[in-house]
Amino acid sequence: MKKSNSKSRSDCPINYAVELLGDKWSLIVIRDLMFKDKHRYREFLQSKEKIATNILADRLNKLEVNGFITKSVDPDNLKSAIYNLTMKGIELLPTMVEIIKWSAMNDESSALNNNLIAYKGRGTASVIQDIRDKLEDQLVST
Amino acid sequence: MKKSNSKSRSDCPINYAVELLGDKWSLIVIRDLMFKDKHRYREFLQSKEKIATNILADRLNKLEVNGFITKSVDPDNLKSAIYNLTMKGIELLPTMVEIIKWSAMNDESSALNNNLIAYKGRGTASVIQDIRDKLEDQLVST
Repeated sequence: MKKSNSKSRSDCPINYAVELLGDKWSLIVIRDLMFKDKHRYREFLQSKEKIATNILADRLNKLEVNGFITKSVDPDNLKSAIYNLTMKGIELLPTMVEIIKWSAMNDESSALNNNLIAYKGRGTASVIQDIRDKLEDQLVST
Repeated sequence: MKKSNSKSRSDCPINYAVELLGDKWSLIVIRDLMFKDKHRYREFLQSKEKIATNILADRLNKLEVNGFITKSVDPDNLKSAIYNLTMKGIELLPTMVEIIKWSAMNDESSALNNNLIAYKGRGTASVIQDIRDKLEDQLVST
């Protein structure tokens, strides 16, 4: 795994997350891996937010350096890469679910019908467990 | 209240939060209001992360425009402003708590001893309720 050598602005846990993920795109890539079963460069490029290719390359690299994702050879295409969340990335699931719930409350135009949490009509903990189980099955040993 | 007129990249709830809060400083200001009882410009400037004064002014303005905070006259100093979270801001509390828990798990140098969640040794829901009650008492009617 690549190493990060940046120095933190403080030892605050909110700051830790903000320094690693506080930008316009990192959580979009994590969302695609977590909820949309996207694992390939071209799949991330196709998302509705239309990430630019140079920004995507930069964010994938940073997410790998900081231990959120792994990059491995795609068994279906040996010239291509496949990305998966690490446990550190999977453990963002409760945070992501709280963000979705907050946005659903505060954004009138939110895509509620496409929202795993809203339309399954089940408790949050049960939905989280299902997604976590699926993501842990995809874990790549490093 | 000031109005926001930006157009969203998508209707995804994760994207909604990322567009409003995805930067290096917005959640730091919200943390100061939520957990550190800071309400004044000079108090935000004194935080450990050392936010620059022009960035602080920009983020306070954006947070007000997007409905996360209110700005009112400081009753103790009529030439000065006082900032408070709105309900939209207070409702970020469960997300912030999940971020803190995630960082506590993943950052070895995290300030666990200064961490409300960790050292109170109580359930998350109970800690959240206490903080929420306190923040709702500070709500400024708009």
